[in-house]
Amino acid sequence: MKTLGYAAPAAGAPLEPYEFQRRAPGPLDVAIDIRFAGICHSDIHQARDEWGNATFPMVPGHEIAGVVSAVGGRVTRFKVGDRAGVGCMVDSDRTCDECIAGLEQFCANGVYTYNAFELDGVTPTYGGYSQSVVVQEHFVVRIPDALPLDVATPLLCAGITTYSPLRHWKTGPGMRVAVLGLGGLGHMAVKLAHAMGAEVSVLSHSRGKDADARRFGAHAFHVLQDEIDFEPLAKRFDLILDTVGSELDRSPYLRLVRRDGSMVLVGLPEKPLAIEPFAIVGARRSLSGSTIGGMAETQEMLDFCAAHAIVSDIEVIPIQKVNEAYDRVVRSDVRYRFVIDIASLGDTRR
Amino acid sequence: MKTLGYAAPAAGAPLEPYEFQRRAPGPLDVAIDIRFAGICHSDIHQARDEWGNATFPMVPGHEIAGVVSAVGGRVTRFKVGDRAGVGCMVDSDRTCDECIAGLEQFCANGVYTYNAFELDGVTPTYGGYSQSVVVQEHFVVRIPDALPLDVATPLLCAGITTYSPLRHWKTGPGMRVAVLGLGGLGHMAVKLAHAMGAEVSVLSHSRGKDADARRFGAHAFHVLQDEIDFEPLAKRFDLILDTVGSELDRSPYLRLVRRDGSMVLVGLPEKPLAIEPFAIVGARRSLSGSTIGGMAETQEMLDFCAAHAIVSDIEVIPIQKVNEAYDRVVRSDVRYRFVIDIASLGDTRR
Repeated sequence: MKTLGYAAPAAGAPLEPYEFQRRAPGPLDVAIDIRFAGICHSDIHQARDEWGNATFPMVPGHEIAGVVSAVGGRVTRFKVGDRAGVGCMVDSDRTCDECIAGLEQFCANGVYTYNAFELDGVTPTYGGYSQSVVVQEHFVVRIPDALPLDVATPLLCAGITTYSPLRHWKTGPGMRVAVLGLGGLGHMAVKLAHAMGAEVSVLSHSRGKDADARRFGAHAFHVLQDEIDFEPLAKRFDLILDTVGSELDRSPYLRLVRRDGSMVLVGLPEKPLAIEPFAIVGARRSLSGSTIGGMAETQEMLDFCAAHAIVSDIEVIPIQKVNEAYDRVVRSDVRYRFVIDIASLGDTRR
Repeated sequence: MKTLGYAAPAAGAPLEPYEFQRRAPGPLDVAIDIRFAGICHSDIHQARDEWGNATFPMVPGHEIAGVVSAVGGRVTRFKVGDRAGVGCMVDSDRTCDECIAGLEQFCANGVYTYNAFELDGVTPTYGGYSQSVVVQEHFVVRIPDALPLDVATPLLCAGITTYSPLRHWKTGPGMRVAVLGLGGLGHMAVKLAHAMGAEVSVLSHSRGKDADARRFGAHAFHVLQDEIDFEPLAKRFDLILDTVGSELDRSPYLRLVRRDGSMVLVGLPEKPLAIEPFAIVGARRSLSGSTIGGMAETQEMLDFCAAHAIVSDIEVIPIQKVNEAYDRVVRSDVRYRFVIDIASLGDTRR
């Protein structure tokens, strides 16, 4: 199946139109007409080969929302016309302890949606900046009718990346959660933690986002710059979700975590974090990490969002503006997620 | 009460004899004739002002074992002649949430045994490299009769510092625990984790310590130098206790922790740790920290050691050799803890 997409031809080169093949759906496959694809900061890291080992041409995109166009003979959960989503993974070995536990995100043989190879080791995967995708049913989730496709798109990565650690660290009433960074991940974290019943604070570097933070459900908004700003918040939070994917001295933020609490990294800065030993030892704190979520949990997250009317705040762009959008993401100039209208791919007038 | 001790007169200067006053025991105080004092690496960090804010003259020593010489009128748990120990703390505010929870080690107003000030803010505290000490009953522990005083001395810091995190992270049968570094803390960690029923591995840089590690109860001993040494142990351990108080790239060790496991720092390196984000995010791992333990837990640890015949492997020295011993500790040339025989303080022939 021929499909049209946008690809980075080489590390750091602008994305451009790219035609390639999708496999014909096998018995367990679901074929999806893609309607929207979100732009995640990690798309940019990879298209610019900032994490290493990137393969080109690269069709990014792991926030994919669309409509089922065909199903294989053994597919049971989807039929043509269903609203469907694909996130960061399209396969895993399905036999390891992690997969059996429903934690496919930790499978050592997991196959990422793009910039990876299928389990055969040779077939490259191509992501959602394209007209169609063919994915095994197990890695396709249902997008509830209550969620419009465009604003649901970022849930497939930004949503599950924040939902999973919030659940794992037992977010609920009586808990004080701080969200560090109010971007694509951060704005979802605030909405989700608020819906789970926690008292949510935002720790940001952008004063101008105060009103947005409160609209998303935050109880408090702090811009912490000098030592004196941090003092009153010492040991205040049960959990800090660190959504900042760039360099930042984490140690002063760790000191805002109560005894036995955790700061959980969900962004992926390029450089090692410098952590002061006293910042963790002094209150038996933990610096932890979390990455996306398993398939069952991804569906649970979408259902949770439908039940609580949670969607992403997005700016829809035609795919012809993807390179410009990349630069704006790097400058944090987006509120709060770019979503590509895939219909624009067929628009030759742009 | 006049007492004789050894003090560092200034940062980095050799320790020398020093005469000073101990308070007369108040109603809640226990006076102890010190018999033995352990040398902890943190004594050296502080005497050399490597953590900052040190005050001089400094009488180090927070592993103190002796015999009660006097008790105040309201003391109920000790009488003259009892075997008694003092660890890293001699006071705390007793009113905060941490103190009420029995976790005095996390009290924001905790008073360290030396290089600190009493709660009055002006009276300096002096440690165990001295003939006597006067401490509130609450901060004195009973040394069980089954434990000889000299080999029990290091339990007051090295013992509780490793016992507390092993307990907190639920060490027991079926758990795989690795101890990183086989020094004063590490050798206690191996003995304790083994006695708790865990399968214990030692990760060391000193090939020569293999036989000792096994004698302490380790099931395996690994010297990990190149990437290829780490590979077979990936995700193997439920818990790594990191007792290395110096610079070391922790990220490769973090990758040896299973999904949802923890590496717990109990040493205190001077410089920030450089932690690769992927090393924690990739398996929802935690880098955590722990420091000593509360008073009730310190007593529990001593009773556990008595029940399991656990003591420290020590080298007893006269106090006149303390400066030489410091240099040897820094070179890791001690198996596994120096203990000062305080009787040597009165020996004018040395």
